[in-house]
Amino acid sequence: MNIAAENQSPMVTSGTFPASRKIHVEGQQYSHIRVPMREIALHPTAGEPPVIVYDSSGPYTDPDHTVAINGGLSRLRESWVVSRGDVERYEGRHVLPEDNSFATGERLTPEFPVRHAPLKAVAGRAITQLAYARAGVSTPEMEFIAIRENLGRQAGRETSVRDGESFGAQIPDFVTPEFVRREVAEGRAVIPANINHPESEPMIIGRNFLVKINANIGNSAVTSSMEAEVEKMVWAIRWGADTVMDLSTGRNIHNIRDWIIRNSPAPIGTVPLYQALEKVGGIAENLSWEVYRDTLIEQAEQGVDYFTIHAGVRLAYIHLTVNRVTGIVSRGGSIMAKWCLHHHRESFLYEHFDEICDIARAYDVTFSLGDGLRPGSIADANDAAQFAELETLGELTKIAWAKDCQVMIEGPGHVPMHKIKENMDKQLQTCGEAPFYTLGPLTTDVAPGYDHITSAIGAAMIGWFGTAMLCYVTPKEHLGLPDRDDVKTGVITYKIAAHAADLAKGHPGARLRDDALSRARFEFRWEDQFNLSLDPDTARSFHDQTLPKEAHKVAHFCSMCGPKFCSMKISHEIRAEAQKEGLEAMAARYRDGGDLYMPVENPAKTIAGEA
Amino acid sequence: MNIAAENQSPMVTSGTFPASRKIHVEGQQYSHIRVPMREIALHPTAGEPPVIVYDSSGPYTDPDHTVAINGGLSRLRESWVVSRGDVERYEGRHVLPEDNSFATGERLTPEFPVRHAPLKAVAGRAITQLAYARAGVSTPEMEFIAIRENLGRQAGRETSVRDGESFGAQIPDFVTPEFVRREVAEGRAVIPANINHPESEPMIIGRNFLVKINANIGNSAVTSSMEAEVEKMVWAIRWGADTVMDLSTGRNIHNIRDWIIRNSPAPIGTVPLYQALEKVGGIAENLSWEVYRDTLIEQAEQGVDYFTIHAGVRLAYIHLTVNRVTGIVSRGGSIMAKWCLHHHRESFLYEHFDEICDIARAYDVTFSLGDGLRPGSIADANDAAQFAELETLGELTKIAWAKDCQVMIEGPGHVPMHKIKENMDKQLQTCGEAPFYTLGPLTTDVAPGYDHITSAIGAAMIGWFGTAMLCYVTPKEHLGLPDRDDVKTGVITYKIAAHAADLAKGHPGARLRDDALSRARFEFRWEDQFNLSLDPDTARSFHDQTLPKEAHKVAHFCSMCGPKFCSMKISHEIRAEAQKEGLEAMAARYRDGGDLYMPVENPAKTIAGEA
Repeated sequence: MNIAAENQSPMVTSGTFPASRKIHVEGQQYSHIRVPMREIALHPTAGEPPVIVYDSSGPYTDPDHTVAINGGLSRLRESWVVSRGDVERYEGRHVLPEDNSFATGERLTPEFPVRHAPLKAVAGRAITQLAYARAGVSTPEMEFIAIRENLGRQAGRETSVRDGESFGAQIPDFVTPEFVRREVAEGRAVIPANINHPESEPMIIGRNFLVKINANIGNSAVTSSMEAEVEKMVWAIRWGADTVMDLSTGRNIHNIRDWIIRNSPAPIGTVPLYQALEKVGGIAENLSWEVYRDTLIEQAEQGVDYFTIHAGVRLAYIHLTVNRVTGIVSRGGSIMAKWCLHHHRESFLYEHFDEICDIARAYDVTFSLGDGLRPGSIADANDAAQFAELETLGELTKIAWAKDCQVMIEGPGHVPMHKIKENMDKQLQTCGEAPFYTLGPLTTDVAPGYDHITSAIGAAMIGWFGTAMLCYVTPKEHLGLPDRDDVKTGVITYKIAAHAADLAKGHPGARLRDDALSRARFEFRWEDQFNLSLDPDTARSFHDQTLPKEAHKVAHFCSMCGPKFCSMKISHEIRAEAQKEGLEAMAARYRDGGDLYMPVENPAKTIAGEA
Repeated sequence: MNIAAENQSPMVTSGTFPASRKIHVEGQQYSHIRVPMREIALHPTAGEPPVIVYDSSGPYTDPDHTVAINGGLSRLRESWVVSRGDVERYEGRHVLPEDNSFATGERLTPEFPVRHAPLKAVAGRAITQLAYARAGVSTPEMEFIAIRENLGRQAGRETSVRDGESFGAQIPDFVTPEFVRREVAEGRAVIPANINHPESEPMIIGRNFLVKINANIGNSAVTSSMEAEVEKMVWAIRWGADTVMDLSTGRNIHNIRDWIIRNSPAPIGTVPLYQALEKVGGIAENLSWEVYRDTLIEQAEQGVDYFTIHAGVRLAYIHLTVNRVTGIVSRGGSIMAKWCLHHHRESFLYEHFDEICDIARAYDVTFSLGDGLRPGSIADANDAAQFAELETLGELTKIAWAKDCQVMIEGPGHVPMHKIKENMDKQLQTCGEAPFYTLGPLTTDVAPGYDHITSAIGAAMIGWFGTAMLCYVTPKEHLGLPDRDDVKTGVITYKIAAHAADLAKGHPGARLRDDALSRARFEFRWEDQFNLSLDPDTARSFHDQTLPKEAHKVAHFCSMCGPKFCSMKISHEIRAEAQKEGLEAMAARYRDGGDLYMPVENPAKTIAGEA
């Protein structure tokens, strides 16, 4: 792994994965698009083509790319957006002291060096991917996504028998731009792609596509650093995060976010309420629609791709949380509950949702309707408060769709296994199949320090049932802020959950990597096993702890059984014999073998007779 | 944590858990039995009784117990066994050079200092727990287990509404000795309790009891140490392993096993074939029934509680593995396949299964019928080879039951989520509800280095569906031998899976710990959160990495949001208000609140009207 630096620019992790190279597949409808993928080469003895895997890591793993954080990534989508002729550049909002919580001097994170005047929709024009999809327009973003989701599959080449249970998901053998368009038009998928985040590589979140994962980053009132947050973003997408949420609180929220967005090839999500709260000194009751609206515009101009909006926490639902074991655990949910309680008024987010939609549609900010009343413990799962809010989220979905806004729905939380499917089914029904985006869920409360695992169980299951994106949980959940190692552990754990879900749904491309790795395992191609794994570094280092020598990387045994005996080796002998005499002859001979394959009506007697 | 040592005795980890004390509940039918449990005290402000949890750790966490590995644990069950009057002590087999693979001098692990002449059944007497159960005898082991499974629950006290989906499991509100007896008599549960392992604390494996977990230990031809293996056993049960399998290969198998058994309060399982193979120099085709039989007797006299027997790998099934992606991955399975192949004969385990039963019944060794043809990759899951073997395991179960032998059935392996339930259903049907004991299953092949997680997903699910014991998988699976940290990670991960399964099945006692921990979380009782967690050390250290000061342990905030804002704090304010005015009044006032709670037939209009 190389650490590249450019003059004064903060350093971030870059460099390719072992045996991997970045390839780009060109568009057909839009020949200027170049869709990145990672190609993993196998050992020549495998006699197999390289394995192509989804690549969320952006230019940081491209050796041809010079990393320079203070310049930002190239703005590849800018010409796509501008050429549609329905946006205008304007001066936009300038940074105000409250945007960074009045940080000054050395405590102020420097502004990002380059300012781009923002774009917005020309008055009266609908510029969201949903609007285009409904109008029958297949955008470059849609073709980019179609190519990306196919992972090198060719149309008509794979006619595999589906092995999976999709619970109603309709994943095609081959993804076309038209399929992407239709899924977006129907509201079953979203493309989070703010027109002011042209650095992003388009991706899609929907039940009929690969299951995605999100990683949360962000400084807090307790710890903070711009460099650390940019590196966390780069680090998270390196290991497979498809989107990144910047959940910063405290000072410097605006400036840190600018650094993150300008350097992120992945969509960036936020909870605008967090920054709005900072602007009013952390006093929830001092929040107002005006402060909130200003924050939405500020963030939309910066290029935030999706907003979590906790507009489902209504005044009338708050009493439903009183007898809960853990009350309201969503930060956004409790901010709004406190505001409603103090003013004894309906939520201003709910009341102004129509105007919120108008802002979002001008920049194509996707909604992630927050589950402010999600359960925070097994005891509170699937209760009245949670499902009352879900009904409201369904109602808000329709409003957003009427405004051409893209919508996904956030889900829990803490849910025991037997209550997970009910969540998925209710969400699909209540929210018109808008994509579900869940946090875990955690399947037990008893393992703080291991909640990446308690939640991976639930995440894999709900992903299988139809959740489109899984928000990661790190080992530090409930205990502290994740560090670099925690972020990686969380991301890898959630790649496992998402991939297990893809396999169980019967995604036509999912099993290729499993099978390639299993063949490598069976053929003692240790290097291929490492290289094909989600985390080659860890796989290699674990192997080397027991068998460190290079010679062991070609050994036809491993440390579990040692050199004298190996089950895989015996299987090879069996296979060699079958190849020699032919499988049918072998089977016949085995069936004959001493008349031993006989009915078992009286097994005890049979055995006694043979002994 | 204290490290206690006694003279020359190797050191093992001992000492209590934080805020915990070992309690003993006395028997009623058998007043001499004392059932250990762990009682976790809560902070006085909680106003709650202590939480009682299952305690698999044995005397090592009892401050009144002086640890002395070279003396072994006290032989608490010896008088129970002898007093039944149906066993006899005899000279038994003495250690032979081949038992330790001819290790000599410094390479020979010393014999355990004390030799106990073995017991066996008096000729013609059936002394297995199954035989007693069928005869209507409720043994001390059964009462011990009944008390242990209740975790302090009182008969008739809990009449909770069941919250769970048990898929046909019938877990009672309160476990009686008679219930234990009946489950054993029906073959739905096993009590692995060799009469020559009187140091063991009785436990039960069955679908209608708490889900159990097993940890594998054992030296290998590559690495080895007696002290390390005893410590691994003590370490594994400390964190929650219910049984331990000694899968040693290489030299010193006999002597190391003696040290382990004499110091283990948990049942010990083995794969006798591994030692038999060492006795014939690692050449599978040189195995014979005679060598194997001798090994069974050797191990039964030592006190091994359950044997994995790969008698389902029949000659006629071997060709079914030829076209698999990963062939045969079970070590025992491939040894037998090689033997069958070489001699072109039916498996001697299958042919002599009747005699194997005679040995097992003389010592009450439980069978764990091995799945030698389990799938080793997603591609091979639920294939013809796997299910052909399962049919044979069902057949062998009937033979064993006819001999009064206790039986459980081993299961896979690598299985994608959508194929897990089929495994459980087929096993229940084919094997007459004998307990299922699965390895994971791993739900994807792409994450070597994280297979504790890929498999925890499958383990939690199959545990929910009815698997009675889950064999752990460590992060080193497929890559190397687990070290101390890996053993702990594997055990905690599997405790999570087992507990998540208990919750989902609706076990009447399972949620108590979740709820207590969640209440502690809601009330900012940080110390209680740590103490109630499966791994207090890790929970505490993760918290301290961000907020190290002692004062933060009583802080009404955490590092995620910082001191200015906390969602839990707001929930407390809401609750306080509700208590002040009464919940009903609050609800009414909230519903009234500005006529905002209204039908949503036309939500857009509703909102516009309110704005």
